Amino acid sequence: MTTDNRQMWSDLGIDLNRHDILLNALVPIYKDVYLSQKNRPQGMCFFDFVVGDIHGIRVHELRKHAMNGGKVVATYCVFVPEEIVWAADAIPVGLCAGTQFSVPIAEEILPRNTCALIKSSFGFKLGRLCPYVQTSHLIVGETTCDGKKKMFEILGQYQPVYVMEVPNKKTRLSRELWTGEVVAFKDVIEKLTGNKVTSAKLSQATGLVNERRRALQRLYDLRKVRPVPISGKDALLVTQVSFYDDVTRCIKQVTALCDELDSRVAARNGVAPDNAPRILISGSPMAIPNWKLHHILETSGAVVVCEESCTGTRFFTDLVPENGGTVEEQLRAIAERYMQIHCACFTPNDERLDDIVRLAREYQVDGVVHYNLQFCHTYANEAVKVEEVLAKEGIPLLRIETDYSDEDAGQLRTRIDAFLEMIRK
Amino acid sequence: MTTDNRQMWSDLGIDLNRHDILLNALVPIYKDVYLSQKNRPQGMCFFDFVVGDIHGIRVHELRKHAMNGGKVVATYCVFVPEEIVWAADAIPVGLCAGTQFSVPIAEEILPRNTCALIKSSFGFKLGRLCPYVQTSHLIVGETTCDGKKKMFEILGQYQPVYVMEVPNKKTRLSRELWTGEVVAFKDVIEKLTGNKVTSAKLSQATGLVNERRRALQRLYDLRKVRPVPISGKDALLVTQVSFYDDVTRCIKQVTALCDELDSRVAARNGVAPDNAPRILISGSPMAIPNWKLHHILETSGAVVVCEESCTGTRFFTDLVPENGGTVEEQLRAIAERYMQIHCACFTPNDERLDDIVRLAREYQVDGVVHYNLQFCHTYANEAVKVEEVLAKEGIPLLRIETDYSDEDAGQLRTRIDAFLEMIRK
Repeated sequence: MTTDNRQMWSDLGIDLNRHDILLNALVPIYKDVYLSQKNRPQGMCFFDFVVGDIHGIRVHELRKHAMNGGKVVATYCVFVPEEIVWAADAIPVGLCAGTQFSVPIAEEILPRNTCALIKSSFGFKLGRLCPYVQTSHLIVGETTCDGKKKMFEILGQYQPVYVMEVPNKKTRLSRELWTGEVVAFKDVIEKLTGNKVTSAKLSQATGLVNERRRALQRLYDLRKVRPVPISGKDALLVTQVSFYDDVTRCIKQVTALCDELDSRVAARNGVAPDNAPRILISGSPMAIPNWKLHHILETSGAVVVCEESCTGTRFFTDLVPENGGTVEEQLRAIAERYMQIHCACFTPNDERLDDIVRLAREYQVDGVVHYNLQFCHTYANEAVKVEEVLAKEGIPLLRIETDYSDEDAGQLRTRIDAFLEMIRK
Repeated sequence: MTTDNRQMWSDLGIDLNRHDILLNALVPIYKDVYLSQKNRPQGMCFFDFVVGDIHGIRVHELRKHAMNGGKVVATYCVFVPEEIVWAADAIPVGLCAGTQFSVPIAEEILPRNTCALIKSSFGFKLGRLCPYVQTSHLIVGETTCDGKKKMFEILGQYQPVYVMEVPNKKTRLSRELWTGEVVAFKDVIEKLTGNKVTSAKLSQATGLVNERRRALQRLYDLRKVRPVPISGKDALLVTQVSFYDDVTRCIKQVTALCDELDSRVAARNGVAPDNAPRILISGSPMAIPNWKLHHILETSGAVVVCEESCTGTRFFTDLVPENGGTVEEQLRAIAERYMQIHCACFTPNDERLDDIVRLAREYQVDGVVHYNLQFCHTYANEAVKVEEVLAKEGIPLLRIETDYSDEDAGQLRTRIDAFLEMIRK
């Protein structure tokens, strides 16, 4: 398999030397962050395997699909409606990167004052480190933030990029614009694949993606229990993997995991003591292998029980109504569902404030950590309002602004310790 | 007048002590930057007077207007269609601030990783330093960048704010959205003022704003001449003042200045030697009193002959067609004109690259300085493409990223000296 992988990576134009360093670095990190955890659910074995083979089997599957004439569509955002991609027999794959490793590569071109997620992702392309982007036929970007919006223009010099316009407000006209963008996206995908997105195909794809959403909702519901049956790190990994794994396999694995967690709940078998501070993380997304904040929190005695983020609730909260209908009616329903994502790209975005307060109650949290990737203007500004709202509700808040480097790990740990001590009083 | 001003500022809720410090600091800066220049056009006396009385007469005029039942509408961007404001007998006033003085005040609330223009402007409100914002009945924001888009939400806690959605792309649907926003803005202004925006009023206002655009176009055309009859600093000041001065007076003063410059051109009376490097500045806007880059360039032997920026060509380049027609037809024409502003908020925005090359030729420049306010993602990313295009055209480029502080003045001067030396060879 290893030889097989190296040949494939080479065929894909991967910089093998640099890629070796990246993968070799991941092993001890994963051991330290994940495998050191005690009393993990058995169901996490699959996800351990997936990370252990992160650029292997799944890439082989995508390559096989491509060799059979299928298309692979790379995305960076939960706003890109994957139902449409599946309905055209193409495969969507989430590409956000979460490692400092590729940041300096990106900084050769991108402004340094760009958030780590954008730099890391761009560096993966520029440094020829990511077999997923190399396998993909089209990258689909969006306009959710200035940094990504403009990065995509530069990325377009290396690989075909199509950008969907996510509006800034939620007026009737903004919604019309977005619906139009969803329809246009269907045309783009039909043209790319040569396949027609029919009403039946779209219904089927919607059902499938909804089923994964329900599976993840079930997983998150299980985290509401005290003691919590799964660590925040493990739950985060499940969400991260579901961005690029096969949707059917993902449903199966998440469901098996949830069945196991049901038994754990019945047996009051938790991963943390009853009195461990329960934390809601809210803010910027965390792409693999960005487990930094969870790791510090969970090795400081807390347990993360929910992520209000794009690698959390924003990914799966709402379902697309499965009413069937014409392709046009279904596309409209899809557009409406995606407009319900409470991203900080919208102004105003008070619904997110409501979400944070609601989730804090539902997950019985003792405190909220607002997580902000440095240079992310939208979440950084929204943190001002989050602070006001949580103060009014009497919910403790810690605001963290960080990047992918480990330079501030000590300082973060000190601040988190102080926060947890304050909560425990 | 001074006593009169203090009473007015006090009535407006200005923090008099802090405001005194601000105004007293401005005097020596203005003397150093402006009054030290040699061979200035007589027509600049008016603009010297305006700056000398920066929070005086004009504020009195706006107050008088307000006391007579008129409305004042504050804006931060060239996308807000002022024709509509004038047509409702309200007065628009540009509010962007260009001083480090108010930045620390803003940083008490806003993220520090925000561009100086946003922080300075927000700090003016928070610190009660700006009689213009205090006089205004409505602040009109827009969605041209993440920083402003989200700042307006916070600003809305202090004063009524209305936000116009500027789209991200320029598709048919995006243009429809923008036209809808222009129509909605008319409704907002009608409601605010209680005045109807009639076809005749809108025609008249459009004619007036166009006339000011033509006057500024004439001023800029005169800068194409070698030797250039006016310094870049002086021309920049004229544009800056036209953002908040009375439009009729502005036209009169700019026209008088241009008449004088015509004579200077005839007499080959320039402000810089024939061989002084001619510089085009392209990028972020410069609000009063942000004269930093011009000052360094022009005291290093260069002369700035054009600004491709919102305090430059983007402010006045295109006219609204004066074809009359219904209010709806006129609003559509207005919307179309504003969509021609080649702001980095759009993706793609290749028209701006064309503009820079075209302006570089028209103004016979020896080099381009790309000016980027730190943390402005859109212009910082676009600088990558500007660099590529200018390299292809063989036009020298210097990329500057800075803020409002003077901390990097020495370093900037060194880099600019090196750039000018390279150009002169």
